[in-house]
Amino acid sequence: MVRGSQEPLRSATMTPEEFRTAGHALVDWIADQRAAVESRPVRAQVEPGEVRRSFPQAPPETGDQPVGHRGDISHLLSDLDQLVLPGMTHVQHPMNFGWFPANASLASVLGDLASGGLGGLGISWESCPALTEVEEVVCDWMRQLVGLADHWHGTITDTASTGTLTALLVGRERATGLSQNRRGLVGESEPLMVYTTSQAHSSVAKAALLAGFGYEAVREVPVDPTTFAMDTSALADMLAADVESGMAPAAVVASVGTTGVTAIDPIAEIVDAVNDLHETTGIRPWIHVDAALAGSAMLLEDYRHLWAGIDDVDSLCWNPHKWMGTILDTSLLYYRDPRFAQQVLSTNPSYLAAAGSENQATQYRDWGLALGRRFRALKLWFHLRIDGIDTIRERLRADLASTRWLEAEISATPGWEVVAPVPLQTIAVRFTPPDAIERRVDIDAHTRAWIEAINRSGDAFLSPTTLPDGRWVARVSIGAETATRHHVERMWELMQQAAAVPDPNALPPAI
Amino acid sequence: MVRGSQEPLRSATMTPEEFRTAGHALVDWIADQRAAVESRPVRAQVEPGEVRRSFPQAPPETGDQPVGHRGDISHLLSDLDQLVLPGMTHVQHPMNFGWFPANASLASVLGDLASGGLGGLGISWESCPALTEVEEVVCDWMRQLVGLADHWHGTITDTASTGTLTALLVGRERATGLSQNRRGLVGESEPLMVYTTSQAHSSVAKAALLAGFGYEAVREVPVDPTTFAMDTSALADMLAADVESGMAPAAVVASVGTTGVTAIDPIAEIVDAVNDLHETTGIRPWIHVDAALAGSAMLLEDYRHLWAGIDDVDSLCWNPHKWMGTILDTSLLYYRDPRFAQQVLSTNPSYLAAAGSENQATQYRDWGLALGRRFRALKLWFHLRIDGIDTIRERLRADLASTRWLEAEISATPGWEVVAPVPLQTIAVRFTPPDAIERRVDIDAHTRAWIEAINRSGDAFLSPTTLPDGRWVARVSIGAETATRHHVERMWELMQQAAAVPDPNALPPAI
Repeated sequence: MVRGSQEPLRSATMTPEEFRTAGHALVDWIADQRAAVESRPVRAQVEPGEVRRSFPQAPPETGDQPVGHRGDISHLLSDLDQLVLPGMTHVQHPMNFGWFPANASLASVLGDLASGGLGGLGISWESCPALTEVEEVVCDWMRQLVGLADHWHGTITDTASTGTLTALLVGRERATGLSQNRRGLVGESEPLMVYTTSQAHSSVAKAALLAGFGYEAVREVPVDPTTFAMDTSALADMLAADVESGMAPAAVVASVGTTGVTAIDPIAEIVDAVNDLHETTGIRPWIHVDAALAGSAMLLEDYRHLWAGIDDVDSLCWNPHKWMGTILDTSLLYYRDPRFAQQVLSTNPSYLAAAGSENQATQYRDWGLALGRRFRALKLWFHLRIDGIDTIRERLRADLASTRWLEAEISATPGWEVVAPVPLQTIAVRFTPPDAIERRVDIDAHTRAWIEAINRSGDAFLSPTTLPDGRWVARVSIGAETATRHHVERMWELMQQAAAVPDPNALPPAI
Repeated sequence: MVRGSQEPLRSATMTPEEFRTAGHALVDWIADQRAAVESRPVRAQVEPGEVRRSFPQAPPETGDQPVGHRGDISHLLSDLDQLVLPGMTHVQHPMNFGWFPANASLASVLGDLASGGLGGLGISWESCPALTEVEEVVCDWMRQLVGLADHWHGTITDTASTGTLTALLVGRERATGLSQNRRGLVGESEPLMVYTTSQAHSSVAKAALLAGFGYEAVREVPVDPTTFAMDTSALADMLAADVESGMAPAAVVASVGTTGVTAIDPIAEIVDAVNDLHETTGIRPWIHVDAALAGSAMLLEDYRHLWAGIDDVDSLCWNPHKWMGTILDTSLLYYRDPRFAQQVLSTNPSYLAAAGSENQATQYRDWGLALGRRFRALKLWFHLRIDGIDTIRERLRADLASTRWLEAEISATPGWEVVAPVPLQTIAVRFTPPDAIERRVDIDAHTRAWIEAINRSGDAFLSPTTLPDGRWVARVSIGAETATRHHVERMWELMQQAAAVPDPNALPPAI
């Protein structure tokens, strides 16, 4: 081996030994931070621009420490404390009841660290066989754990937004017989229609528009006025009428657990409506199911009736990075038959050419949008190996028991109303003050005000939503990994206190 | 505060203290693994299915350790050694010259760990103000570091594939005057055309097809036969002729550093061609620049002439997760004016509603495809703070010097040919054996064979590509963070040895 003359053996960037020192310090910092999270305000107490202005406008010209001393990251940890922590809304806080749970279990944080440490590159099977094959393994494990049939094959994407967009792109191409191989959508003559409800996640409409369907092609299927679930007889009528008028139903996006009130669109009935259409017209729209939150509930066998019929849809996504708690970004996208998706999503350039054996391997780049992929499977593997699915299931059951307790408390309390069924762990709730009529209280404004008062206090966090009739309600979404029954009980106290005040935001902040 | 009765204070998942213990062990494992990476084969020595079959078919029913002992991850680390490491192609290895550098600097691994530990959720400014604002800060720092004008505003996406798809979606909507607000692409009458070269990354054609343009709408602009860069007079002619024929040029995707041979499309000339078209026809196609690899070179002032004109295009992406070495996924997407992109990409559902101050804040969900986002900015922040941009620049310069050295060696050696200009750190090379004509050697087959022989040996790794005329060549892409001059010298020895053998793969594997 020819040795270079004046070149150093390694560049002056952080060495493994410096990483060891700094890594220990950072692990300690994280452990301390997680242990202390309950002492912090849930919602960040900063104004827009405040964090940004605390940073220098120009980039640093050099590293914090001289070469050889890069294991000392004390300046950086101190800046994390001073500059970053105040700008965190702590979704890992046990009093976080906002949006949906976004748990970042410590076991999965370690899996993510292992992925980073290995520094694998997922652009083809060959570029990291383990990255591809462990992903195949854990996607199949997760399939088994939620009771899906073995015809499903999954991949890990960043988010359900991406999964839904991908599904709609694939569905668009099935509906047009691969228009992408011709003149694209511009060459199509029949309007391509997408069906979903007003309660679907915002990513569904966004995905439909980005996939080129157009606002006028997104059909809003009515929902049942009490369950907020898709009215499938209305869907059947719309499908038939649209075909009659010369339009081409391309896709139906159903939600199992909508973002507002966790409404459950009836999958089996949707499948029936689509099958009927197929039998009578030969047209078979792609059915995609967004179960981003609810997928975690399907880890519990007695909840699987909520997505009965699921094995007959075309694609589905759900997010272990929500309630189950495998850190973001861990969104599972399953195809009933990935071969068609691969046709739509394939890339096969020469610079990815490899030896013959490559052809027998899964190329996940052809299952989604991005070419380069992280070794995301390690997060799920670590989570299952360290915490154990039995422990995770026990936690979900405890959350569901707390939800039932809170639902009963709310229902039994004068002025309080649970405004939608509670199939999972989110309660949509509204309070009408006893003197609302005589005081001409604007209940919507009052609802938003008492939510904001709680959020502003930093003691707890919850988010508002609107119902199809326009009413504002509060959502209490139970399931932060650190939360126990007493946090739910405390939340209920805070809600009653805040809502009882005529002008909740006239109160001084509690902290 | 009401305390729950029989509920435990925390679920039985990993605690901060267990994380501390396990985290230290994992950090040590990573430091050891990185320190030993040179002793491993570069390319994984496994067959398809081998890693998968080493895992159980059914998911584990419980965690490895009982509750209270979850800090012991020795079983998992041992399985990482036994099951995962053999399936790694070690792109962090100093003898990795394949594809493009995919450096995962240890400083940025720590930033990624800080992100995981904090467990922030990026779905709106409010959900994590620091996540949004530190991203604004580091995107602006990176803008300054590559010398872009201050009208650019950036965001961090996962990959350039996603950035290019996003840019083409936004460009499509500009070309159609927001067709998404009407009937979508189906409602358009004029064929919408996209212009790029055969040398563009596979993600460009994929993005164009997914954006609904269709194969027939993707115009392949000829390249210069010696530089492989876009022929801009041909572009100008194609644009004019297409408009003449009733087609609508919607977007031009230019590459600064193509994936095959790092060809540099001349940006200023492309801008001129588009401006001319705009003046004569009123049509102004969106210009997107893919500088995924080459962006890192722009950290060096004397390389910025390679993308002269860049400030006048509409969007650009480049990947610090390549040569610069901020771990995947760190792809920067910049908009000259993000306001139009926000119109195309916006979501504004009620459950994300927040207090009024929110309206003054950046909502990155409206800059890209995904709603949920990780705290990716920390990777860049840690990388700049720990390693320092001065050190990073020094490393890039050393790689460029090694490249010039190798290019000179190859050019001076009989039978060896550098087949394309070498503007950056990748050399496309071909060897013709001295007796090639008399032995009727198939040079393409021989090229692939000697590349495969090196890759199979595990001693080093490089990838093949094809030129526009169909010839197969080897790519030597210099820039693994751990590589020094002596590794490049060793690579050159291995190439000469492997290529000199009539049937390189008849040799037994070297390891």
